[in-house]
Amino acid sequence: MQFAIENALPVLERTPQVMETLLYGLGDEWVNSNEGGDTWTPVDIIAHLIFGEQTDWIPRVLVIMGEGGKEFVPFDMEGHHAIKKGKTMNQLLDEFKILRKDNLAFLKSMEVTNESLDRTGIHPILGTVTLRQLLASWVVHDLTHIHQLSRVMAKQYTDAVGPWTQFMGVLGGKR
Amino acid sequence: MQFAIENALPVLERTPQVMETLLYGLGDEWVNSNEGGDTWTPVDIIAHLIFGEQTDWIPRVLVIMGEGGKEFVPFDMEGHHAIKKGKTMNQLLDEFKILRKDNLAFLKSMEVTNESLDRTGIHPILGTVTLRQLLASWVVHDLTHIHQLSRVMAKQYTDAVGPWTQFMGVLGGKR
Repeated sequence: MQFAIENALPVLERTPQVMETLLYGLGDEWVNSNEGGDTWTPVDIIAHLIFGEQTDWIPRVLVIMGEGGKEFVPFDMEGHHAIKKGKTMNQLLDEFKILRKDNLAFLKSMEVTNESLDRTGIHPILGTVTLRQLLASWVVHDLTHIHQLSRVMAKQYTDAVGPWTQFMGVLGGKR
Repeated sequence: MQFAIENALPVLERTPQVMETLLYGLGDEWVNSNEGGDTWTPVDIIAHLIFGEQTDWIPRVLVIMGEGGKEFVPFDMEGHHAIKKGKTMNQLLDEFKILRKDNLAFLKSMEVTNESLDRTGIHPILGTVTLRQLLASWVVHDLTHIHQLSRVMAKQYTDAVGPWTQFMGVLGGKR
């Protein structure tokens, strides 16, 4: 599919409600369990999405659209730890919803043209990237974390499903 | 996590709304695209979930709880083709929502005890399985298809994200 603001926005707009539907009020054993080691819990994932709204997507749109330097500030993959401190999952979901709504309202207010989509910025690792690629990545980043979340949750039932693991793609099975 | 009806039901109850939030009214380029070859589109996935409500989960609960033979009818992995024929995504989502609601109401009406959870049936490939494993698998099956759906959608933007693929777990990247 070719990227267009019109096919990206509906996905970006839905993600907070997808997360809310999956997680709001759900038991602690689901939202505070991870995949072992220092992997992320559902709480970490939502805190990371909040941190992205604050420091990643729109700030980088502004770098690309601005007249100043084109280098993006590196994204801090540990930034979610400070975000989640002292907050419940429900509070984090509410916060994510408000930030996303504001950020998309701002994006729409910019009336991005096809010419703007070709403008570039400099990613600290990836080098030159376009606004089009940045906005497409915002969408795929949402989907990456829905993908991760479904896997983190499924793994809590690895023992419970018994022999069915072999049919469950999310647990590494073949279907 | 130990399986309990109390931690399984909230996930099973949410899946139709999760799918609805992700997909209701979403553009054709998202809901009718697959991962290439004879892989599934989002429409196929929802039709497959409907077919599972009709022929898989509750029918197998009834086999386990009944007094007759214990063998499950094999599940038809192609059964969704007939389900989706002539229907829009929105119609399929509505159908899935109603079937799931009815099936969970029926499950609750059975008042499954810890003893019932140890009862067994015979899966055509997996052999002897318990009711506990069947119900846990219903949950993980939902999560498997949320996992698949996020991947199928993300892949439509593989070219659009450009160099960002390497950071997108859902596209095989390392984050």
